Amino acid sequence: MQSVSALKNLFDDFVESQKFRDEPKGLFEPMNYILELGGKRLRPVIALMSYNIFSDEVEKALPMAFSLELFHNFTLAHDDIMDYADLRRGKPTMHIRYSINTGILSGDAMMMYAFHYLNLSSEDDQVQRKLNSLFTKTAIEVCVGQQMDMDFETLDQVELEKYLQMIKYKTAVLLAGCFQTGAILGKATDTDAEALYAFGINLGLAFQIQDDLLDLYSDERFGKIRGGDILQSKKTYLYLTALQQADQATRDKLLVLYKTKTLTDHQKVEQVESIFNQLNVRELAEKAVTEYTDASFIQLDSLSVERKRLEIIRSLAEELIQRKY
Amino acid sequence: MQSVSALKNLFDDFVESQKFRDEPKGLFEPMNYILELGGKRLRPVIALMSYNIFSDEVEKALPMAFSLELFHNFTLAHDDIMDYADLRRGKPTMHIRYSINTGILSGDAMMMYAFHYLNLSSEDDQVQRKLNSLFTKTAIEVCVGQQMDMDFETLDQVELEKYLQMIKYKTAVLLAGCFQTGAILGKATDTDAEALYAFGINLGLAFQIQDDLLDLYSDERFGKIRGGDILQSKKTYLYLTALQQADQATRDKLLVLYKTKTLTDHQKVEQVESIFNQLNVRELAEKAVTEYTDASFIQLDSLSVERKRLEIIRSLAEELIQRKY
Repeated sequence: MQSVSALKNLFDDFVESQKFRDEPKGLFEPMNYILELGGKRLRPVIALMSYNIFSDEVEKALPMAFSLELFHNFTLAHDDIMDYADLRRGKPTMHIRYSINTGILSGDAMMMYAFHYLNLSSEDDQVQRKLNSLFTKTAIEVCVGQQMDMDFETLDQVELEKYLQMIKYKTAVLLAGCFQTGAILGKATDTDAEALYAFGINLGLAFQIQDDLLDLYSDERFGKIRGGDILQSKKTYLYLTALQQADQATRDKLLVLYKTKTLTDHQKVEQVESIFNQLNVRELAEKAVTEYTDASFIQLDSLSVERKRLEIIRSLAEELIQRKY
Repeated sequence: MQSVSALKNLFDDFVESQKFRDEPKGLFEPMNYILELGGKRLRPVIALMSYNIFSDEVEKALPMAFSLELFHNFTLAHDDIMDYADLRRGKPTMHIRYSINTGILSGDAMMMYAFHYLNLSSEDDQVQRKLNSLFTKTAIEVCVGQQMDMDFETLDQVELEKYLQMIKYKTAVLLAGCFQTGAILGKATDTDAEALYAFGINLGLAFQIQDDLLDLYSDERFGKIRGGDILQSKKTYLYLTALQQADQATRDKLLVLYKTKTLTDHQKVEQVESIFNQLNVRELAEKAVTEYTDASFIQLDSLSVERKRLEIIRSLAEELIQRKY
């Protein structure tokens, strides 16, 4: 079993070795640019960890892991255009650094290369077919998630259930897909591979709700503004829970308050938080995180493998979820 | 053997039966919109014809054919954004009808569905692997072609060789890929499948040069303006041949003339045409069409199948190339 940092180093070296050097430069250079923004490389590391539960030859899983990272970066390139995002990890996004056309086309090319590396994942034709099928299903769902997210922006109110569906598609299915892809390539049983997928879905949901909580209730701000989601009128798990819990009068008040432009930032955050507190929003969200986390660990415990082979995944999951606030 | 129109009808019915009806509508409706703009559906019909050389069960090839049509429409959706195109077949392009974000995301989703249908093409794992590998290679090359095309717009002069490479990637590889995909799915020998690919490349190049010729020398205008490419200062085979053939003085004159804004449309076309005529551009382009056409038919004749099974493809190719002007 390899440690998270060993897997990440292995993966970083592989990405470096696969640097896109072909012509035309206008197509390939931006792909290197966004890949070099780097980040945690959570998705490929997850896929390698999951593979490593079932097989020790981690090097063989690198093209598959790279495929997932390329896919993730393709979604970043296109989402940043659609969301009018200028910065990513403190650097200009692809379409700002180059152009919108580049964001579109080099994004597309990353998607094609994601399939290219996926196709190189396994010499076993049946395994390969399973990987392709899962990958395609996941890719479609991620598009659905992005569309739902964009649709929600124009709505005042969104049912909590719909919000959960959106974050499932936009975030959780890809994490889950990484776990399952690693398992399939490692020749896990179908039952184990599906349990890891379910683990990933629940973990992804817990993670996203936790993220919404941290925006308001964390002391460690990582350079972010407290209540940034409130200031941007984002429809978070907290806000949608509050709307669901509130009586008519409070709901109307919150709806108006959330869109107001007449308060200072500090006033707006304070007043929204005060409504959240009345409605026990924090506790309800924490309960949801716990439930999804518990559900995910039940799936992990169901795997038909030695417990010690799961330790790294368990630690990573705990690290992802139990961030202090 | 089925006729072109029988294959097209079969395909049209399949597309209708696969209409995207899922939620969210904002993602799927635009996909139906662009698919319903219809057109000749040349690429899926080519793939079905090619399949039909080797197998009579054409119905089995429909998901593969749909995959190719989805891919083609994905490229149209994104290219129309990148090329600032407002109309396609007389109707608003996807991003004009909806929004740029829709053009990007529904385009992406069409690409994912292209892979989805591709994955359903064959029950034979080895055949499926070959299809996926060819599809991915082709998709990457089409991106390269689009990038080259965009790069050329900012250049005064492009070598003829580079232009041929661009149209090969932007147009010919997909036509060739359709021929080869049909052949692989129909379980042709590798030699036959590759010959059909080479046939498609040469046919595609002949077709594109012919298209450049028709813009200036055809009497049938199909509603287009004579010399439209010249008026748009497009770098066509004719223009780049002229630059290649010209002495320094004529080249300088043509370079200035091609970008001029001081002449009437009629004057500009007349004066450019007069230089083309001095330099035998028409004859040289016609010679290139003939050479690529001949090269394509040599590939077709090399196939290890009964001649009569090739008649439809031969007619279609002749129809594509030998348009009167």
